[in-house]
Amino acid sequence: MDRFRMLFQHLQSSSESVMNGICLLLAAVTVKIYSSLDFNCPCLERYNALYGLGLLLTPPLALFLCGLLVNRQSVLMVEEWRRPAGHRRKDLGIIRYMCSSVLQRALAAPLVWILLALLDGKCFVCAFSNSVDPEKFLDFANMTPRQVQLFLAKVPCKEDELVKNSPARKAVSRYLRCLSQAIGWSITLLVIVVAFLARCLRPCFDQTVFLQRRYWSNYMDLEQKLFDETCCEHARDFAHRCVLHFFANMQSELRALGLRRDPAGGI
Amino acid sequence: MDRFRMLFQHLQSSSESVMNGICLLLAAVTVKIYSSLDFNCPCLERYNALYGLGLLLTPPLALFLCGLLVNRQSVLMVEEWRRPAGHRRKDLGIIRYMCSSVLQRALAAPLVWILLALLDGKCFVCAFSNSVDPEKFLDFANMTPRQVQLFLAKVPCKEDELVKNSPARKAVSRYLRCLSQAIGWSITLLVIVVAFLARCLRPCFDQTVFLQRRYWSNYMDLEQKLFDETCCEHARDFAHRCVLHFFANMQSELRALGLRRDPAGGI
Amino acid sequence: MDRFRMLFQHLQSSSESVMNGICLLLAAVTVKIYSSLDFNCPCLERYNALYGLGLLLTPPLALFLCGLLVNRQSVLMVEEWRRPAGHRRKDLGIIRYMCSSVLQRALAAPLVWILLALLDGKCFVCAFSNSVDPEKFLDFANMTPRQVQLFLAKVPCKEDELVKNSPARKAVSRYLRCLSQAIGWSITLLVIVVAFLARCLRPCFDQTVFLQRRYWSNYMDLEQKLFDETCCEHARDFAHRCVLHFFANMQSELRALGLRRDPAGGI
Repeated sequence: MDRFRMLFQHLQSSSESVMNGICLLLAAVTVKIYSSLDFNCPCLERYNALYGLGLLLTPPLALFLCGLLVNRQSVLMVEEWRRPAGHRRKDLGIIRYMCSSVLQRALAAPLVWILLALLDGKCFVCAFSNSVDPEKFLDFANMTPRQVQLFLAKVPCKEDELVKNSPARKAVSRYLRCLSQAIGWSITLLVIVVAFLARCLRPCFDQTVFLQRRYWSNYMDLEQKLFDETCCEHARDFAHRCVLHFFANMQSELRALGLRRDPAGGI
Repeated sequence: MDRFRMLFQHLQSSSESVMNGICLLLAAVTVKIYSSLDFNCPCLERYNALYGLGLLLTPPLALFLCGLLVNRQSVLMVEEWRRPAGHRRKDLGIIRYMCSSVLQRALAAPLVWILLALLDGKCFVCAFSNSVDPEKFLDFANMTPRQVQLFLAKVPCKEDELVKNSPARKAVSRYLRCLSQAIGWSITLLVIVVAFLARCLRPCFDQTVFLQRRYWSNYMDLEQKLFDETCCEHARDFAHRCVLHFFANMQSELRALGLRRDPAGGI
Repeated sequence: MDRFRMLFQHLQSSSESVMNGICLLLAAVTVKIYSSLDFNCPCLERYNALYGLGLLLTPPLALFLCGLLVNRQSVLMVEEWRRPAGHRRKDLGIIRYMCSSVLQRALAAPLVWILLALLDGKCFVCAFSNSVDPEKFLDFANMTPRQVQLFLAKVPCKEDELVKNSPARKAVSRYLRCLSQAIGWSITLLVIVVAFLARCLRPCFDQTVFLQRRYWSNYMDLEQKLFDETCCEHARDFAHRCVLHFFANMQSELRALGLRRDPAGGI
């Protein structure tokens, strides 16, 4: 129990590391969800793009909002923004600092999803198989445009009768998957370059201001936790007194009614 | 034993975290139950929709009532509503706060079930395979409407002779599953957006009132726990005195009857 | 818990070993990513070289920046470079020492990727199959240059109809893979020789200066950690006093309003 309590105190004391942990957990959950997702393209001309893009973009949106939801700092930020100005001056910079730190952590899981989906390529093949330019492939020379459209809609479904063992299906699928992977790796590189610039060049500009904002953001978190704890303690103390008062009252009432004469008698 | 007791006391002291834990546990149990459920569609025209929708909606209802049952606050809320008005003013807002917090926690497990069922798609395919518009698929051109209905009823049963290895079955099944997943992801997104708005925009409106209600809701919980404990202690104390009194009485009666002469005798 | 804490303290206290651990972890992750990567060459004349070289060089670049990102020392280095000169003299040598140690650790994972890709050979075959000199192989004698180019573009795709079971495909592929492995082993040897010279011959030149720089680089790391910890402690202490002050104020206000007469009464 003591170990559990110490672990708990450790987590309580350093809120930032907790948030990083939650952020990592969410990213891991994202990988788990993606790998357990049963992706099946409808292979119907009108629905392909909708389904593919939906599965590429809806879950990241949900994960982004989840990331904001589970982060205590996002609530703290709104509270700091709306609090009545007391002795402590309101500083927009602190709110901006909290906002950026919340956004950074909330964006991790959606990015993981999008990159996984792009590197895997299934969503991309499903979404864009109808948009491929048939001119690029020699296999469509002797097909009418309507037939080509029908064929392209079936490309994501390996098992379909129409496209089974067709070299054209493999060529289109290969082309789209390799495009998807290229986009995925480009986004990865871009994200890492931006993160690198943001992290390594920041000390060149406003290190002191940054440290101050971090201090205050930590302070707000601690203040709220202490407030909650003190409230709880206050309520317990108050309830204790009320209950004791009730029992004392009851006994004095009984004594007044003459129902309790000797110390071992009824209530 | 001591560890267990301390854990118990910790859980007792912070009722909200316990409720969150129970809520998570219920959701985990839901996932476990769903994954171990052996879903098999009857594939009979009249029963398909009933079975599919039943399995989609009955367990969530049961889980919702379970969620209300295991939550202490739902009982506290009714008690607060019916208690005689004493010195402490009755506040409808507190009851409303408790009600909403109880409902939120009770809705988690049913939502998990519904989303799992929709993302998995089996229930949906079973429930709506008869309602599919045959015009959408080219494979039904040379079948009578009656045959189409019979065929559609068999769609959820992969192993059935009538539909085995039929590309039409695969197409309908693919279409329904992808519709099911789309609905599932839309509900997920909607729920998360609502939760996000409720949590992150709340501090903009009535933060003080909210904090007060949370304080009183915690207070009620603590008051009842302390009342129970004090009652228990009082009863033990009282019983102790009664039992001692009984033995004292018996000994004096025995002495009066002259049945107890030496100190090592009977009772 | 105590063990966990000791491990944690050990990791905290010796930043260099943490960095080595992270560096190893990144290399392991690299191996994992490479082995789970689904490499598929587009087999289209114009895209082959782009895709192959992209997959050979983009991930190492991303991994290199990642290696810089996760290394605390890279931020410390920029901070040391930009800090206002106080009593402690700024020494360019220390910055150079930190820079080289950061670069060494950041280069490990990219090297692992490049060596894996070269020893595996798939990327190399995909990138350079179009650049092979057809004169080297006897099989292309009776093909037009255009046909040879189309054939060479299909070499990385084993399953393609055009090249299936063709001995020419096998010959070209064998030649390219063996070239790729030769380059990979040469780079491995070169890296190991350089590392050996740097590590074993360094004590011959400037051992004292090296030890001093290492001391100061460790010092900076520890200084920052202690500063962060003290900040956190300060914030906690301050928040504690503020919250107590708030509750004290509330009780004195209540007393002033005459709402709190006896210790067991309502608020």
